[in-house]
Amino acid sequence: MKLSGGVEWALHCCVVLTTAQSPVPVTHLAELHDVSGSYLAKQLQALSRAGIVQSVQGHAGGYRLTRPAAQITVLDVVEAIDGPGSTFQCTEIRQRGPLATPPEQCTKLCAVHRAMLRADHAWRAALRATTIADLVADVERDSGPQALPRVGGWLAGQLGQA
Amino acid sequence: MKLSGGVEWALHCCVVLTTAQSPVPVTHLAELHDVSGSYLAKQLQALSRAGIVQSVQGHAGGYRLTRPAAQITVLDVVEAIDGPGSTFQCTEIRQRGPLATPPEQCTKLCAVHRAMLRADHAWRAALRATTIADLVADVERDSGPQALPRVGGWLAGQLGQA
Repeated sequence: MKLSGGVEWALHCCVVLTTAQSPVPVTHLAELHDVSGSYLAKQLQALSRAGIVQSVQGHAGGYRLTRPAAQITVLDVVEAIDGPGSTFQCTEIRQRGPLATPPEQCTKLCAVHRAMLRADHAWRAALRATTIADLVADVERDSGPQALPRVGGWLAGQLGQA
Repeated sequence: MKLSGGVEWALHCCVVLTTAQSPVPVTHLAELHDVSGSYLAKQLQALSRAGIVQSVQGHAGGYRLTRPAAQITVLDVVEAIDGPGSTFQCTEIRQRGPLATPPEQCTKLCAVHRAMLRADHAWRAALRATTIADLVADVERDSGPQALPRVGGWLAGQLGQA
């Protein structure tokens, strides 16, 4: 079971967007991360549909976060990119075959389904426990307090050149 | 992010194998669950490679569990079918682009990677907390104490007809 690679890109973009003073074009985000602009554009469109970023049109257009980083969880980003559906799909095997349980007796979810849902909920709870602001704080601890302002400066410089 | 459908089938097979007095051929497990025999055979081969079931050759051949159901976790089965790899692949985006962090400064995992690993570990811990014996107990609570013995009786009857 693998998450889409777009989740990694989208999370890095959200961290970077906290440093930007103005909307950031996808091309600058792609250049900064050295990743495919067309694929990154799809991830930002997904973040936009989920209301995490907003697209600003026009000459100075680009993307910006719609709310403070402390109000965006990692789960918000994962579900924006990968969808909110459970990691486990129950096909009601218990209702099949020569010893099928009659539908009227299946008032509770199947025991296998319940076990898998508990794990899915634990995964989502852990993703919900970290916000983009937490990631920003972690990056500052890891790379020093100047690392993200340096990114913000680079983004401003790119806009100045445009 | 979706788990392989084989996980559901493999978990149901492990529960059913606790009721069997003799090794169970894949064809009987497939008929009981009304699923594709060839696809189910692949899942049982994966369980066998992981040491969860053992293939018994010969006229009365088939699969049996290699250890008590209380010693087989749902995580064992999920990792047998889906592999043990993390749900998140870090491509070290921080080391790319014009502001790349030099490798020698990347002594810790990336903050994004750490957040995703915490969730992966929470998911695995929840899967590890439930055993096949727990699922058997849940099925008995849900469907009554005769439900699984009835399956065992059906399996024995199929062998008698062979």
